[in-house]
Amino acid sequence: MTIIRKYDKVLLEHGSGGLLSNELIAGSFLPHFSNPYLERLEDSAILTIGNQKLCFTTDSYVVSPIFFPGGDIGSLAVHGTVNDLAVCGGKPLFMSTGFILEEGFPFASLEKIIASMAEAAKTAGVKIVTGDTKVVPRGAADGIFINTSGIGIVEYEGSLSVKSIKAGDVIIINGTIGDHGAAIIKSRENLGMEAEVISDSAPLNGLISEILKANPNIHCMRDATRGGLGAILAEIAQSANIQINIAEQFIPVQDNVRGICEILGLDPLYLANEGKMVLFCPSADAPNVLATMQKHELGKAAAIIGNVATGTQGRVVLKTSIGGERIVDLPTGELVPRIC
Amino acid sequence: MTIIRKYDKVLLEHGSGGLLSNELIAGSFLPHFSNPYLERLEDSAILTIGNQKLCFTTDSYVVSPIFFPGGDIGSLAVHGTVNDLAVCGGKPLFMSTGFILEEGFPFASLEKIIASMAEAAKTAGVKIVTGDTKVVPRGAADGIFINTSGIGIVEYEGSLSVKSIKAGDVIIINGTIGDHGAAIIKSRENLGMEAEVISDSAPLNGLISEILKANPNIHCMRDATRGGLGAILAEIAQSANIQINIAEQFIPVQDNVRGICEILGLDPLYLANEGKMVLFCPSADAPNVLATMQKHELGKAAAIIGNVATGTQGRVVLKTSIGGERIVDLPTGELVPRIC
Repeated sequence: MTIIRKYDKVLLEHGSGGLLSNELIAGSFLPHFSNPYLERLEDSAILTIGNQKLCFTTDSYVVSPIFFPGGDIGSLAVHGTVNDLAVCGGKPLFMSTGFILEEGFPFASLEKIIASMAEAAKTAGVKIVTGDTKVVPRGAADGIFINTSGIGIVEYEGSLSVKSIKAGDVIIINGTIGDHGAAIIKSRENLGMEAEVISDSAPLNGLISEILKANPNIHCMRDATRGGLGAILAEIAQSANIQINIAEQFIPVQDNVRGICEILGLDPLYLANEGKMVLFCPSADAPNVLATMQKHELGKAAAIIGNVATGTQGRVVLKTSIGGERIVDLPTGELVPRIC
Repeated sequence: MTIIRKYDKVLLEHGSGGLLSNELIAGSFLPHFSNPYLERLEDSAILTIGNQKLCFTTDSYVVSPIFFPGGDIGSLAVHGTVNDLAVCGGKPLFMSTGFILEEGFPFASLEKIIASMAEAAKTAGVKIVTGDTKVVPRGAADGIFINTSGIGIVEYEGSLSVKSIKAGDVIIINGTIGDHGAAIIKSRENLGMEAEVISDSAPLNGLISEILKANPNIHCMRDATRGGLGAILAEIAQSANIQINIAEQFIPVQDNVRGICEILGLDPLYLANEGKMVLFCPSADAPNVLATMQKHELGKAAAIIGNVATGTQGRVVLKTSIGGERIVDLPTGELVPRIC
């Protein structure tokens, strides 16, 4: 059972994707908005309208800086919402955009962002069909915030949910972790590093469509965004009441990302990704799923990183490279605000 | 044809719902996002998924102050999106919420707003099924911004669109104009006025459902929000290439709203509403539509305010109370930023 602490004021950590984010949802939102759609707490709501099974999701993007190696707030706003639909088995169809602009925001930047959104939407095969723009006086917002909401159609027959995860399931990731977080941090700080770090921001719907076509037994998928792989797995372990075992040596991390983490004392497990998903499936299916992933551009570095064990419920155990073990908790504090 | 002026920086007026808002859409968004769904430029996109006709809309809310007589940013965020669905003939079903919070925002205010949203959603019969919260550092936003996106199902058989408006159509409004704008202005300024002014923020889906049930020949509906009745009619006149004639004496305005307008030199025609819709229908149907409206709580002060004439295309002509005539243009400038 979650213990809800009460705060007088909102902290940065309430937006971290970690412990206080979950407390905010459980303590403030759910008691008022309670309904079966929302209570699933997956990346998208699953809706049945007539005989159509749809998914619906929303995210606001406040990333700083708005332009970064590998993307910008516009492409990120498309990819993030596309991915939230795709990991729920949805084929993304339609998207809305809500812009909040600060008076004085440069039109050149706005048009670059709009062009980038359009390009990202085209690549992902999703149509931007409705929108809204508000302008607030100088100082009332920082440049530009973008909300996107998305609608997809769910054609996959299986039930994709943390509730479908079973002991023995294998956990697969589609590539290296922490690239987006490291790219944003490097854009902000002068680390005296030459090596370029590029965000992994990308639409996962193509990859996921290939996986689902070839594998009828996928149990659960999640994109590992805010809070990184560590937060997502800790949340899943709690929510599904399972023990997750992962091994550090199998988790792909790029050298330059590891370098940034060493300089700043960060753990790549908790760095945000914007083009990474974790997938749970029966061990018998894992080789086929892995092969499907590795054939796709966005899954070349896919790897099996662990499994679901019959152990202590609600926790993630990491076997470290030097042979030790540690618990991966939900992150506390907010190391990198405005990561997405 | 719209002449698009280019600006270096975003002005407050680009969010006004007036001339520069339209230029922003036509000059910056449409060239990139162009598709038949978006180009309708109605309050919601109409989507066909399988055999279902759905509508989809989004709005961000940045109103200041966040609590005002008659509502708050939470109820407003529900009503605004419910109304955008309803005027397109949609029965609102599902809604998303995206919160952007400033670090330090009081939890007491947040919980009051969440409770207010939940209450408004319940009244409107819509379910909040998915959400997101971001927190930005102190100074990077002003308190709280809320995005809501909504999905509705369109059951009305008629084609509700500015394109369906015909010469001879009668124009009906469901009540007094300018209440929301006046309430916000009065909350901000010390006008030395005793009389309370209460926002008209309300969900129009119940009223609209009654109207559509009883009247198969409605041509077009719009809610008259940002920019007020004047902006909406000017936009419709341009977009449908028609002349609209309205008579000042028939447009309902409360005395206290008129009072505020006189003190500040504002025109109630351009003050925002959050519970008002204009409707276009054949004159033969107008008595029945008006009667249906007046039977409903939110249509008691409904009135016929004008008609569609065969005159100069693309303009709105107001017959003033003292017998003169003037053109109602799209508003320029932004008299009341952060009205919604």
